[in-house]
Amino acid sequence: MGWLADETGLERTAANYVPLTPLSHLQRAAHVFAQDTAVIYGGVRHSYSAYYDRCTRLAAALAGMGVKPGDVVATLLPNIPAQAEAHFGVPACGAVLNTINIRLDVDTVAYIFDHGGAKVALVDSEVLALAEAAKAQMEGDGPILIEVPDAEARISASGRHVTYEDLLAEAPPAFDWIMPEDEWESLALNYTSGTTGRPKGVVCHHRGAYLMTMGTVISWRLQMRPVYLTIVPLFHCNGWNHTWMMPVLGGTVVCCRNITAAAIYDAIADEGVSHFGGAPIVLNMLVNAKPQDRRAFDHTVEVFTAGAPPAPATLTKIEALGFHVTQVYGLTETYGHVTECLWKGAEWNMLDTTGRAAVKARQGVAFPMMEEVTVLDDTLAQVAKDGTAQGEIVMRGNSVMKGYLKNPEATAEAFAGGYFHSGDIAVQHPDGYIQIADRAKDIIISGGENISSVEIEGVLMAHPDVNLAAVVAKPDEKWGEVPCAFVELKEGATVDEAGLIDFARRTLAGFKAPKAVIFEELPKTSTGKIQKFELRKRFKTF
Amino acid sequence: MGWLADETGLERTAANYVPLTPLSHLQRAAHVFAQDTAVIYGGVRHSYSAYYDRCTRLAAALAGMGVKPGDVVATLLPNIPAQAEAHFGVPACGAVLNTINIRLDVDTVAYIFDHGGAKVALVDSEVLALAEAAKAQMEGDGPILIEVPDAEARISASGRHVTYEDLLAEAPPAFDWIMPEDEWESLALNYTSGTTGRPKGVVCHHRGAYLMTMGTVISWRLQMRPVYLTIVPLFHCNGWNHTWMMPVLGGTVVCCRNITAAAIYDAIADEGVSHFGGAPIVLNMLVNAKPQDRRAFDHTVEVFTAGAPPAPATLTKIEALGFHVTQVYGLTETYGHVTECLWKGAEWNMLDTTGRAAVKARQGVAFPMMEEVTVLDDTLAQVAKDGTAQGEIVMRGNSVMKGYLKNPEATAEAFAGGYFHSGDIAVQHPDGYIQIADRAKDIIISGGENISSVEIEGVLMAHPDVNLAAVVAKPDEKWGEVPCAFVELKEGATVDEAGLIDFARRTLAGFKAPKAVIFEELPKTSTGKIQKFELRKRFKTF
Repeated sequence: MGWLADETGLERTAANYVPLTPLSHLQRAAHVFAQDTAVIYGGVRHSYSAYYDRCTRLAAALAGMGVKPGDVVATLLPNIPAQAEAHFGVPACGAVLNTINIRLDVDTVAYIFDHGGAKVALVDSEVLALAEAAKAQMEGDGPILIEVPDAEARISASGRHVTYEDLLAEAPPAFDWIMPEDEWESLALNYTSGTTGRPKGVVCHHRGAYLMTMGTVISWRLQMRPVYLTIVPLFHCNGWNHTWMMPVLGGTVVCCRNITAAAIYDAIADEGVSHFGGAPIVLNMLVNAKPQDRRAFDHTVEVFTAGAPPAPATLTKIEALGFHVTQVYGLTETYGHVTECLWKGAEWNMLDTTGRAAVKARQGVAFPMMEEVTVLDDTLAQVAKDGTAQGEIVMRGNSVMKGYLKNPEATAEAFAGGYFHSGDIAVQHPDGYIQIADRAKDIIISGGENISSVEIEGVLMAHPDVNLAAVVAKPDEKWGEVPCAFVELKEGATVDEAGLIDFARRTLAGFKAPKAVIFEELPKTSTGKIQKFELRKRFKTF
Repeated sequence: MGWLADETGLERTAANYVPLTPLSHLQRAAHVFAQDTAVIYGGVRHSYSAYYDRCTRLAAALAGMGVKPGDVVATLLPNIPAQAEAHFGVPACGAVLNTINIRLDVDTVAYIFDHGGAKVALVDSEVLALAEAAKAQMEGDGPILIEVPDAEARISASGRHVTYEDLLAEAPPAFDWIMPEDEWESLALNYTSGTTGRPKGVVCHHRGAYLMTMGTVISWRLQMRPVYLTIVPLFHCNGWNHTWMMPVLGGTVVCCRNITAAAIYDAIADEGVSHFGGAPIVLNMLVNAKPQDRRAFDHTVEVFTAGAPPAPATLTKIEALGFHVTQVYGLTETYGHVTECLWKGAEWNMLDTTGRAAVKARQGVAFPMMEEVTVLDDTLAQVAKDGTAQGEIVMRGNSVMKGYLKNPEATAEAFAGGYFHSGDIAVQHPDGYIQIADRAKDIIISGGENISSVEIEGVLMAHPDVNLAAVVAKPDEKWGEVPCAFVELKEGATVDEAGLIDFARRTLAGFKAPKAVIFEELPKTSTGKIQKFELRKRFKTF
């Protein structure tokens, strides 16, 4: 309580207090970086001056349609410029941005439209039918749809709705942005993927997004004018807030509609992409790319990966190709990443390839904008930092959500004891680095022994024929559960079930080796996470 | 006003809201960078773990002496480790840090002790007599003195006071830091240099210092683990907040008691110093260093310079030596730098040496944490951005002071119209870059023509014999005023008055060339600013 004895006249004023918001970054960039390139999408290139103008027109158009401060505006868009513009244009009219996953089913989209109460939705032509069907099954009218065709991808407008470019063209370019008066005002509404039950609406505030951008600059070692490729969908934690961050650095956002190895290599070689984030499956895609899809480049590309620990074998291979990979960890409830596996200079430089990959599999330590990220037991006591004792990852700090929309019970439960509870089970190493032991559900209990499915997956991924592997518990009369592996092989690979099990036994204790291997393409979420719950379901019908 | 229609349960909680303070940086670093080097001073090396422990002991010791939250603790210290530790240890017990310039006179120190009301002061043995004399002339007891001898500099304790190391040794190491409950709480109290009248006490808040550190990382292109040399005194805007910033990057603070060219070159070569800030006089010192004081190094050193526009000739020379110089601008009231001459990539890369130096003489654009820095006329209207129209530099944003202690009138005046008024006169270029035309007092009006003293100084500094030059107005019967140059020559230089005037006339219009040149050592402030007011006084006695 550092209040001086006499603080007369020392109150907040317009001169010394401005609510924190990522909107300030683009307002500054429109002046400071006016002629630098803000957005690239195929042949489209917008300077910061043009980007600011387009976002302003979007805000003006929405306000003209009757969108009021605090109203919700949804998007159903892939990573195209309109989605980046919505990140500034929607809050610039005081509205709350609700990016919706374009791969959801009609029922869930209808639920989100209804629960979030979007007044307007910007919808890509390719998923227009989804939005229309969702509206049709709602009781009320649902949001007004603005259609976003995509000339670059040769996707034309249906003619059934006003288009995004027409909307911008007709909007008055002079519009004063409605800046937050309180940095706790709501900026974004993101629905969790909700593998069980209805998705929950995570509400984010301006302050958290601003601080997330500042902390990420530090952790990702970003310098002026980076070139960022949007691989993480912007409908997933607002693309980890990277689009809100770019203007503070005068950086360029390279939009990518379809994520393929060829598209990524082209963006690196042609546009000089320096940074991107993506699930380990993206790393895998780059490592296993066909020769004709690869391009040469002579800079190092900084990669944030999250969603699952990258397999040591993948890490080793991708770094040799010119990518520097840092694992980060977070949730929709924390705006994206809040821990990073911060490289420990001298100590880790001495490690061999295997040792390096092993430490890189850790989720690491708190980002700069977080106050504390640690592992607590059931009684909220710190677990022993011995790499063995397990507990739940909890965190507190300024990039934690406000709570769940219209769900105070779930919010209170998530924040019990003054921490946000991640639901992820982890150990903490003596240096404080966190490592996810396993999602609680992913622990296989076989003959009373706990087996980590992640450990088995890491071993299988090291086999030269394996593209992807996922291990789940299979019911077993004798052992209760045994590990069963689902494996995606590379093209032309020949290894069979016995061969893979034998390969695993060379490294793993016998009880940890998979007892069955099923070869097939693995089910994945839109962000590339393997849907283990889908694999587990398979055994419920056996 | 982005409040959703239903915000039930979305209030701030301990999980999602933590008041911003630079104290959080060191708390995090004590875990994340525990074994990295935090502070170096000669043979002294403290890891982050040790640094955190020492700061904690200082906080505990102060609390044990009866220092309460909101009390003021002063320092009279050069840039030694105790001064860096005070930046964390003092606020960690809830107190407000009042760093005092060690080169002030007894009367002014007594005034600051009395006005700020310091309960305790940490005092370097070399300036102990100053502190004792200041206490002696106070009406009350004044602060309890803690003496800080300096073994590295072979400066022994007087024996008259408890010493700093004894205080730390006897303090309990376990002490819970008293973190701010409100980020608007006061963190530091810095007295302006006050060239006219009594100095004013600038009160800084935790929020501003935190955001200053985050913005500086971006502007200075800082990456993990920089090595920072403390040239700017920590009693000057808390060393531009750099000591508060270093822990967020795991960086090393290299302390430097006496600033000499040899000490700077040694720190660069021996400790790998990557960043420092300093007035142009420091650049000059490096450029003109004797051969035996120079050291070779093979990295680029990033330099922030402020206080006056660096002379083009100095810039050209120092960059050839391996230093990359960026001019920044700010005031005690803005925590230090709030504008930077951000390099404009392609456009400026094409400039020749003279052109580069000319653009680098600009004070530039707003730092990321500032909302707006611009130039307004007397009616608070934006001046034309034409490089000619003059106005006052004003700013608003989150690294502006709370106000002046016990001086609400001066605070209200400084914040009139919702901007902090710098008192500095500048032009704005078409790209928005600000350039100080001249401190208002430094404009010489000769025969009705305005002459910029900065322009003349720039020309004189390009002469190979000139070490430093300052130009002021000299009363003249015919012209009203004429430019008079005060010049410090390099050792062994031979140019005379006529030769220098002739040199200036080759570049400048005749009316701008100095009409008189006086050769002598120039008076400087503790931070290396030339005291032009002292030079001006000379003509009042003529």
